[in-house]
Amino acid sequence: MTSRQFPEAAAVGVGGFVRDETPTDEVNQREAVLESLTGTVRELIDATIRTTVDDDEVHRVRDDLDALVARLRTGQLPGPAGIRYNSELRSWNWGNAVMGAANAIAPPLNVVHGPSGCHADVVLGAAYEGPPGLVHGGVSAMLLDHIMGETASGMRRTTFTGTLTTRYRRGTPLGPLRFEAHIAGEERRKVFVAGTISDADGVTVEADGIFIQPAGTPTADG
Amino acid sequence: MTSRQFPEAAAVGVGGFVRDETPTDEVNQREAVLESLTGTVRELIDATIRTTVDDDEVHRVRDDLDALVARLRTGQLPGPAGIRYNSELRSWNWGNAVMGAANAIAPPLNVVHGPSGCHADVVLGAAYEGPPGLVHGGVSAMLLDHIMGETASGMRRTTFTGTLTTRYRRGTPLGPLRFEAHIAGEERRKVFVAGTISDADGVTVEADGIFIQPAGTPTADG
Repeated sequence: MTSRQFPEAAAVGVGGFVRDETPTDEVNQREAVLESLTGTVRELIDATIRTTVDDDEVHRVRDDLDALVARLRTGQLPGPAGIRYNSELRSWNWGNAVMGAANAIAPPLNVVHGPSGCHADVVLGAAYEGPPGLVHGGVSAMLLDHIMGETASGMRRTTFTGTLTTRYRRGTPLGPLRFEAHIAGEERRKVFVAGTISDADGVTVEADGIFIQPAGTPTADG
Repeated sequence: MTSRQFPEAAAVGVGGFVRDETPTDEVNQREAVLESLTGTVRELIDATIRTTVDDDEVHRVRDDLDALVARLRTGQLPGPAGIRYNSELRSWNWGNAVMGAANAIAPPLNVVHGPSGCHADVVLGAAYEGPPGLVHGGVSAMLLDHIMGETASGMRRTTFTGTLTTRYRRGTPLGPLRFEAHIAGEERRKVFVAGTISDADGVTVEADGIFIQPAGTPTADG
């Protein structure tokens, strides 16, 4: 027996949020373990895109990789990871497509919350390419949606994207980039957010979003 | 010697497009080999998100995975994959973030071009999650950008995203989805495209995009 079940959810709450009474120190420990594996999975994604080894070796690597997948599958959550929280108010969403600690699709985007808005510095490599040498326009929209949503919610309320408008000024080169977002206004349940992507030469993409607070949650003006 | 160099680019053309005189049948063969490995990498991404095996086993899998990465790295393209083409007009962009055959981040989205527009059927799993059980809003925007861009270019001209506006009607559940897009109008260098995402119960997200044909390329009305 090479696996044991990680403590399962005690209950599934409203909206799919799962209460999970794993103590915070165990959550932190598990997160670090999964982050370590996920970092190597990201390396594998890049190495797969860029490999020039011969066909037979690619097939052998695939077969060996199949065996690793099977080992991880000896114990699995029944579905997507969702968002979990414990009564110490530690929450974790390791499967999130943009910032999940266990999701190798996520660059990840580590959003820093400041007094006047949010920012995130990230290096996008070969896995995020669209036009040659440039970030895929859809990836730009994806990451802007995420940082702008985090800006709207501010870690103190729940918001969902209502409308997102992304304007592409010029191509965004792969490499080091800065994402920024700030709240431009609020009106009842709507939070208006502006965001940008910049490289060393300035802004490449700008965006405006309207984020909605669900009915039944507190708003700025009732 | 477990690797040999896959034939390298003969020349780097305008905009990073690479002319590569690999014969079409060899391109097709290599694509199938990489697709097979990439399918298993996608399985690994999902298995990593959902695994509940114990910490020690996760560390052992990571170490074994490191060794597989090293094998693929014995021969690597110097940078991102870009877009290649040969004189038989076969082109390939295996690194593309949304539809690349060698990019495990891509679901992939296989766009079908029809007489009145494009569509793509795709099943999005745990790796594309945002809110619990739902597709990340940024992923929806990313995939819409791609199918709408393909609709604008129609495999006969080059276009870049100018502006993309995405409106979220309700949450998009993980699982089987249909993406659709069609050209709503054209005006000099601008191509207006409308797109939707639908689940079994109807439209969840709708989008409008303005796509731009670069100066110096033919347009509908000159």
